[in-house]
Amino acid sequence: MPRTSLPPLLYADTATSADQLYFCRVDVHDPFISFGVGPKRYTVQNALEFGRVKKARTVDQVLPLETWRDRARQSHPNKPVGIAEIIAELAKAHRVRGFRIAADFPTGLYVKLQKLGVRLELADGALFPEREIKTAREAAAIREGNRLSAVGFTVAEDLLRRARVRNRTLQLDGKPLTSERLHHAIAVAILAEGGKADDTIVAGGDQACDPHERGHGPLRANELIIIDIFPRVVKTGYFGDMTRTYLKGRASDAQRQLVATVKSAHAAAIKAVHAGVDGREVHGKVVAVFDAAGYKTTHGKNGSTGFFHGTGHGVGLAIHELPRVSGAISCPLPKGSVVTIEPGLYYPGLGGCRIEDVVQVTARGTKLLSSHPYDWEIR
Amino acid sequence: MPRTSLPPLLYADTATSADQLYFCRVDVHDPFISFGVGPKRYTVQNALEFGRVKKARTVDQVLPLETWRDRARQSHPNKPVGIAEIIAELAKAHRVRGFRIAADFPTGLYVKLQKLGVRLELADGALFPEREIKTAREAAAIREGNRLSAVGFTVAEDLLRRARVRNRTLQLDGKPLTSERLHHAIAVAILAEGGKADDTIVAGGDQACDPHERGHGPLRANELIIIDIFPRVVKTGYFGDMTRTYLKGRASDAQRQLVATVKSAHAAAIKAVHAGVDGREVHGKVVAVFDAAGYKTTHGKNGSTGFFHGTGHGVGLAIHELPRVSGAISCPLPKGSVVTIEPGLYYPGLGGCRIEDVVQVTARGTKLLSSHPYDWEIR
Repeated sequence: MPRTSLPPLLYADTATSADQLYFCRVDVHDPFISFGVGPKRYTVQNALEFGRVKKARTVDQVLPLETWRDRARQSHPNKPVGIAEIIAELAKAHRVRGFRIAADFPTGLYVKLQKLGVRLELADGALFPEREIKTAREAAAIREGNRLSAVGFTVAEDLLRRARVRNRTLQLDGKPLTSERLHHAIAVAILAEGGKADDTIVAGGDQACDPHERGHGPLRANELIIIDIFPRVVKTGYFGDMTRTYLKGRASDAQRQLVATVKSAHAAAIKAVHAGVDGREVHGKVVAVFDAAGYKTTHGKNGSTGFFHGTGHGVGLAIHELPRVSGAISCPLPKGSVVTIEPGLYYPGLGGCRIEDVVQVTARGTKLLSSHPYDWEIR
Repeated sequence: MPRTSLPPLLYADTATSADQLYFCRVDVHDPFISFGVGPKRYTVQNALEFGRVKKARTVDQVLPLETWRDRARQSHPNKPVGIAEIIAELAKAHRVRGFRIAADFPTGLYVKLQKLGVRLELADGALFPEREIKTAREAAAIREGNRLSAVGFTVAEDLLRRARVRNRTLQLDGKPLTSERLHHAIAVAILAEGGKADDTIVAGGDQACDPHERGHGPLRANELIIIDIFPRVVKTGYFGDMTRTYLKGRASDAQRQLVATVKSAHAAAIKAVHAGVDGREVHGKVVAVFDAAGYKTTHGKNGSTGFFHGTGHGVGLAIHELPRVSGAISCPLPKGSVVTIEPGLYYPGLGGCRIEDVVQVTARGTKLLSSHPYDWEIR
């Protein structure tokens, strides 16, 4: 991946920008400036954040925003001074000849900096291509995220096991067992273990055929229930991402065949992963398993059926990051990268099934960073 | 606020972009295209989201990404097709002569669209200036967010009340009562009521003197404890934002005077708010109360003391939005806008105090959108 030699410039908060968190390693929830001077990392903080960020000692220099705003005002005595003028002042004082910016750098700031004569080059690809390769410490943080996902599955299985079936609807403690009750129980258990899992999917029956539907209302017996848990570890900011599919009651032959086929595709995809393989080739293995078993994919006016998403994506400080494992794009998987493998099949009437784990790419294969049983029929 | 007549164009997800959530009113957690055609709202979704977004019926048209990617490929047969080419194709087919974009529109896409000849104009100010004015429904959603904050205060007060003091440290159920235990108890209670409060501040003693320090470790008797709770209502996406300051044990005269002064400043600021007043003038009332009471503000090498943040900020689908109530900038408060009022004083050694409520600006004054007692000494 080619890369300009200019140092990076960011203007973002760390809650929504994985690049900013990667660069600064401290939580700041309003947008702020950070930049490189040679190999050194600088950040600019207002009085509200300054002391805390300085104490965190995660960057080389913390500069006070107010001081630099005053300096920018002296350079521009007759106009209002904003973030762009402050960045221009910083670049001049630190003799930086230009900056490398990410594709998601804000356009408003880009246009103003161009007018001020600050040289900016869009990164060719990721701002920090090294983010794609996970160190042992990062892999451990992702494994911790997946441990939290497994905590969630254990809670969900316990509730499903304890539920009774009445009129084909699941009941627990005298009330219907709903997707919302499972969302809540999973979130509380993960919170207690140091994670946030705000957007967990617990979707049964036809709801699960919209892969990003969170699920709502009473869960039913003998229906496939997809549970997709992607918690963020509060302490490190890294994500886990795992999916299991369950059924309370008794599965039909068609449901069993669906689940077995997804499981085969999941195994075939993991087996195909090694350093340098194209993500598109891994995706192709999933498609081949589904084709061989006779599962068709259709695209209609109101949606798609079959297998209509990518096989996986990188995961780290962002829940979706590089590399991609998809039929849409060629993307070699570098050694040390971490990806999900999550084939799924979705047919309204029959239901949906997705099984997802996380692997780190090694020279000859993979190291599994997630672990939880695949038992899915709960009586 | 002047505004171009071109329709808006967005490329963002709804979890991090309040503009995208405001425009589409449906949760989609990966970036997607949406745009206006005259007064109509269009969005483009991939197969993973399409069915769900269509069922939500919150926009006028949901277009399938895959179909439009194919059309763009036909228009650009010899090059890779990305989001920019798809947007150019959509603009051509819908005869849109250009788009208005927000300052946070991604630069990478901006540069590519310029090259493709798509006319883009940066919005002069907010992309949707009307976001600043809250409807009755939006005000109710913010009030609900503040109800969740109050749920959190009630939980915190209960734990502080039940705590015992041993060696000046708070103990509860045989263990030290820590900031982390309060974060957790508050988050669990708010989760149960339909909110997320991931980043609650519970900071005691000198920790509270860094206003954005979340707080960690055992809480101590006779120290001021700032609790700042800003939950997001899951169903609507609106935020609440309230702060109370507590003390377990016995307050010193200096602590009592500090709290009383912040409370006076809070009352003076709310009294100064009405439609059309400059936020800077409201901020000035707080500064005047602090000056009159002899509280000084200093800026040093390792941080600031006294009052060194703004008095308040707009709140809605984003936790920090327009208008601003700050000494740094002139900003008239329009009728119907909703702002926090949150003066604070911070002196290492003595501690910090901040008191925060949320008001909606009316023609003659304010309507309070938050409600919780100010009792702060807990014996």
